[in-house]
Amino acid sequence: MEIKVYHQIMDWNEDVSSQVRQTLKEHQTLLVNIMGSPGTGKTSLLKALIHSLKDQYSIGIIEGDITTAIDARAMAALDIPSVELNTDGACHIEAMSIQKILTDFDLDSLDILFVENIGNLVCPAEFDIGESLRITILSVPEGDDKVVKYPLMFTDTDCLVVNKIDVLPYFDFDIDRIKKDYQGVNPKAPMFSVSAKTNEGIDSLVAHLKEKFETLLHDPS
Amino acid sequence: MEIKVYHQIMDWNEDVSSQVRQTLKEHQTLLVNIMGSPGTGKTSLLKALIHSLKDQYSIGIIEGDITTAIDARAMAALDIPSVELNTDGACHIEAMSIQKILTDFDLDSLDILFVENIGNLVCPAEFDIGESLRITILSVPEGDDKVVKYPLMFTDTDCLVVNKIDVLPYFDFDIDRIKKDYQGVNPKAPMFSVSAKTNEGIDSLVAHLKEKFETLLHDPS
Repeated sequence: MEIKVYHQIMDWNEDVSSQVRQTLKEHQTLLVNIMGSPGTGKTSLLKALIHSLKDQYSIGIIEGDITTAIDARAMAALDIPSVELNTDGACHIEAMSIQKILTDFDLDSLDILFVENIGNLVCPAEFDIGESLRITILSVPEGDDKVVKYPLMFTDTDCLVVNKIDVLPYFDFDIDRIKKDYQGVNPKAPMFSVSAKTNEGIDSLVAHLKEKFETLLHDPS
Repeated sequence: MEIKVYHQIMDWNEDVSSQVRQTLKEHQTLLVNIMGSPGTGKTSLLKALIHSLKDQYSIGIIEGDITTAIDARAMAALDIPSVELNTDGACHIEAMSIQKILTDFDLDSLDILFVENIGNLVCPAEFDIGESLRITILSVPEGDDKVVKYPLMFTDTDCLVVNKIDVLPYFDFDIDRIKKDYQGVNPKAPMFSVSAKTNEGIDSLVAHLKEKFETLLHDPS
C-alpha cells in the first residue's frame, strides 16, 4: 500500500501558488516579487519603477510588512491601487495571503502587480507566491560578500539590482566581486547597478523589465 | 484528566536554552547574542569589541552563517577561539546548536562567548539561545523607520547599537527618531551610536558592556 507523505507548509504553498499563477494568467496580470534586506531600498526602487512604467502599464501594489502601513500609504499617495499585507511577525509572505488579497484588485484592468516582500535576505526566497518574475535587491552598504553568504536569494531570482551606488565612494564595496559571484551561481540572470535616489541606472533596468513584461504577457504557454 | 499541550519547536527550544544557561552559569561564562540585518556590521563590531575587551576577558566566538566560514576565519585570525555554525539555509540559530557547540570550548577558561547570529532583522529575535545579553545592531543605511517596522528585534534586546554613523552625512537618517522610537518600545535599554570603522563611540559601548559583564558574572541569582 502506498503511504502518502505530506510536507506540510511547503507542499500546500506550492498548490496555492499554482492557483495564484493560474488566476493571474486568466486575467493577463503579472506578479512581480521584490525581495531584499530591510532598508535595501525596495520601496524607493518601486517608486522609481512606477514613475517610469505607469504610462505604459496599469500597476498595483501589495506592500508586505511585519507591521505598520507606512509603505502602502506611500504608494497610495502615488495614485497606485495599494494593499498592505501585515504578516504580524512572520518573516516572509506565502501564496495563501496573495490568493486572498487578489480579490481586492480589479485584475482585468491590471497589467503588473508588484509585491514588496518582507525585508529579509533569507526566508522569502524559499516561498513561491505565484510570481512571474523575481527581483532581488542588494544595496552597497550591505557589503560585497552577500552572494556567497546568502546564496538562495541570488540563485532563485530573475534579476539582481545593486542599489545605492551613489554611496559607492564611502564603502569598501567591489561591484565586480558581486557580479562575478552572482554570475557564478546564476549565469543567465542579469544584474543592474542603480541608485533609486539619484535615478542613475534606472533607465537600463526599466528597459529590461519592459522587454521581460512584453515576453511574459504574450507567453502562450 | 489533564491534556498535555506541546508547542513544538518553541517549547523545546525553551527547555534547551534553560539547559544552556545553566551550563554557562556553572562555568561562569556569559553568552552574548549579537543580532541584526545582513551587512549591518556584526562582524566589524565584534572585531572592535574584542580589541577593547580581550585584555580583561577571555573571549570565544560562535559565528552563525547560512553557509561559508568567512567570519570564523576572520575571528580565528585575531587569536580568538572560534567555531563556525552553518545553519544550511535556516534563518536563525536555535539553542540546540549552541548546546552542541559548547563542548568545543574550554568553558572554565572562558568569560565571554559571543554568538554572531544569522543576518536577519526578524527571526533570530524569536529564539532564546541561552544568552545573558542581547545586542541588536542597526546601521545608518538601513533607514530610521526600522524600529516601528521590525519591532521584536528592538523590544527584546538589552542594548541597541546604531552602527556606521561615519556615513550619516550621506543618508537621510534621523538618529533622534530612532532613539525616540526605541525608547518608546524599550525604555530601560540603552542605545549607543558608533562607527565600527572609525571607532567613534566604541569606548562608551565598551564601558557599558564591562559594567554589565561585571554585574552578570557576579550575579548570585
